[in-house]
Amino acid sequence: MSGTSARSWAKGSAPPGPVPEGLVRVYSMRFCPFAKRTLLVLKAKGIGHEVININLKNKPEWFFEKNRLGLVPVLENSQGQLVCESAITCEYLDEAYPGRKLFPEDPYEKACQKMAFEMFSKVPSLITSILRSQNKEDCAGLKEDLRKEFSKLEEVLTSKKTTYFGGSSLSMIDYLIWPWFERLEAMALNECVDHTPKLKLWMAAMREDPAVSALFIDAKALRGFLDLYLKDSPEACDYGL
Amino acid sequence: MSGTSARSWAKGSAPPGPVPEGLVRVYSMRFCPFAKRTLLVLKAKGIGHEVININLKNKPEWFFEKNRLGLVPVLENSQGQLVCESAITCEYLDEAYPGRKLFPEDPYEKACQKMAFEMFSKVPSLITSILRSQNKEDCAGLKEDLRKEFSKLEEVLTSKKTTYFGGSSLSMIDYLIWPWFERLEAMALNECVDHTPKLKLWMAAMREDPAVSALFIDAKALRGFLDLYLKDSPEACDYGL
Repeated sequence: MSGTSARSWAKGSAPPGPVPEGLVRVYSMRFCPFAKRTLLVLKAKGIGHEVININLKNKPEWFFEKNRLGLVPVLENSQGQLVCESAITCEYLDEAYPGRKLFPEDPYEKACQKMAFEMFSKVPSLITSILRSQNKEDCAGLKEDLRKEFSKLEEVLTSKKTTYFGGSSLSMIDYLIWPWFERLEAMALNECVDHTPKLKLWMAAMREDPAVSALFIDAKALRGFLDLYLKDSPEACDYGL
Repeated sequence: MSGTSARSWAKGSAPPGPVPEGLVRVYSMRFCPFAKRTLLVLKAKGIGHEVININLKNKPEWFFEKNRLGLVPVLENSQGQLVCESAITCEYLDEAYPGRKLFPEDPYEKACQKMAFEMFSKVPSLITSILRSQNKEDCAGLKEDLRKEFSKLEEVLTSKKTTYFGGSSLSMIDYLIWPWFERLEAMALNECVDHTPKLKLWMAAMREDPAVSALFIDAKALRGFLDLYLKDSPEACDYGL
């Protein structure tokens, strides 16, 4: 009952046992973009891990002991240490585990990635608002706002003159923002990158990354999930299983 | 025309020259709690720096080339590298400069500080809302919300069983959140910590810290600034000079 594609644990389930020595556990949800950040970093660094999916529409009582807010992702190691908040989990994994460093060692370069991340900060809530928008007019306004945010990211790529946000190879900032780009197609929002050609090329380059492609969720599955999610269905998190 | 207590640079001013070798420059505003984070870290680590105060109610045109959002703090070094966003400036200084490390080296301990920082994240906007609240009822509700946020921080201190948020000695998380506690007295909000005795003791301990006390702004001056600030006065940033 664990694994990236396993059914979710719901209310009434018995709490899972301790995390096996040598593994890190991630409490996740198959379609959650925040949890995906953590999964991408685990995959990219080759960190041995197990996944416990949580039914976010019908949460297990024990899960609030892992994170009082009841949100995924949460990391747990075999010493019982818990880390939550997606960006914090990613930086923690990068620092605590061996493997390719995803944040640059240079403090200024690292600060630049964090500033670019700040520039991305309005995108997740905008995409959620578009998902929940009730009429065409609202939606058109929100899409225009989204394009403006994308233009800021385009400027970063333009001024850096590189394919990726951190330079010529893929690094932490790319993984941190990718999950929201992955869902553009499922939400019929691909047109929103039509005026930001460098961002569009970045998206194409991202799809070639081994971690990104290993964890890729196709648009049809994502759309299936989103439809159930908007109906508040307790089946949403297990769509397609 | 530089220094923590120098008059601010306003619209129409000529841009400052390059940053002298061996110094870091901080664009600041004497009463800005975000910029104070950076100043505290500079002081605590003993980093040679100069301060250029910005009139935030009448910003110099050239300042937007330092930060497109026109916000303080911004750091600039003699190579012309710019870092903005207060929490990012603090971590950058901690990593790029010698002196006592303010974030713990241990990745889990550092992640814990970042999680506590997240727990603090609603406080700045709540305090701003209280400052701008127009009637007693709104204000009472907001104060109640503030007390709830303080209770979460009290729980962190209770579970850690230490004076400071990072342990038995003062570290980064304490400096990051302190500036909003410094202004409680000026805003007649000290009563909001009456039910969180450990937080109250933490405040008393903080006042004893050399960096905190060197940069302390007394309640009368802060109140004087806030009154002008609420009137959108271009004199606000230079109150008392």
